[in-house]
Amino acid sequence: MPRVSQDHLDARRRQILDGSRVCFARYGYEGATVRRLEEATGLSRGAIFHHFRDKESLFLALAEEDAARMADVVAAQGLVQVMRDLLGGGEHPADWLGTRLEVSRRLRTDPEFRARWAERSRQLTDATRQRLLRQREAGNLRDDVDVDVLTSYLELVLEGLVSHLAMGLPADDLGPVLDLVEESVRRHRVRASLEP
Amino acid sequence: MPRVSQDHLDARRRQILDGSRVCFARYGYEGATVRRLEEATGLSRGAIFHHFRDKESLFLALAEEDAARMADVVAAQGLVQVMRDLLGGGEHPADWLGTRLEVSRRLRTDPEFRARWAERSRQLTDATRQRLLRQREAGNLRDDVDVDVLTSYLELVLEGLVSHLAMGLPADDLGPVLDLVEESVRRHRVRASLEP
Repeated sequence: MPRVSQDHLDARRRQILDGSRVCFARYGYEGATVRRLEEATGLSRGAIFHHFRDKESLFLALAEEDAARMADVVAAQGLVQVMRDLLGGGEHPADWLGTRLEVSRRLRTDPEFRARWAERSRQLTDATRQRLLRQREAGNLRDDVDVDVLTSYLELVLEGLVSHLAMGLPADDLGPVLDLVEESVRRHRVRASLEP
Repeated sequence: MPRVSQDHLDARRRQILDGSRVCFARYGYEGATVRRLEEATGLSRGAIFHHFRDKESLFLALAEEDAARMADVVAAQGLVQVMRDLLGGGEHPADWLGTRLEVSRRLRTDPEFRARWAERSRQLTDATRQRLLRQREAGNLRDDVDVDVLTSYLELVLEGLVSHLAMGLPADDLGPVLDLVEESVRRHRVRASLEP
């Protein structure tokens, strides 16, 4: 039997992740049956579970990948940009939203998952906090409120947005709301001009 | 058979609502079985369903009652106060949270419920909007952002808070976050003092 190259393994793994992402987004975690995962990835269950121990591990790999991508966007553009992406302006809004909704749902209903997810959740908090600290250094952030409070504030709004979208409520008028959120963590110009 | 007085009927209805509220909060909608509702209210299923057509109607009556109470608090003290109550400072925080969580969950998962609830949801939006308009008249509200945007903003934060609590995340550090939310819809003193 020929040895399978690392490149080939990576490509397979990618194929599984991309296909199952669409599948989870469409059917939800419970609805993404093994048969549907096979259809969505174009691979057999044998091939899929050669790369991932079970459906849970496959979903976690996807959710981790999305959390890492969110942390990257946070580092470069801030958490409000992540929210704008969720509203539909971003590169893969539906993808992100799919795993994020599922993570939120399981956090609410599954204490074991909550414990497993705690560490990944800290990643996003840390990225947000670091970004805010850099913004403060650059003089763009308000300096009368603790960075931890601003971080919790932005995360709370993100959760509200995810919940709002999960309820299927209209989101096309939320752009100005996110402007307000962004402005409320910024240094105010009038204030700045009064400083010595 | 003696005629049952209206007072007696009202008292019964109250007894059922109070008992089942505790039951729903403790076991969730699905977990609140008829047997448990009997135990919690101290009444037989016959008595309970004499007053309410079914479990769904009973839950809706409770959720409507809570929504009306929330609208009252909003009218008197604003939506941020509702959020502070959810954090535990209020009169019946656990009660409110119980029905609110269940409403949120069903809004996400049950399109039929979503349609039925739309009108009650508008109640809270209207109360919030009216309160903000009065605050603007009184000169307490920022006047550079549309009242509808401020209303959506506060509702988004409320939903984030409900979701946060539903996930069992620590909430004891959210007081300063709500201060920030409140301040971000207020007229800024420095700005005000610059006006002619």
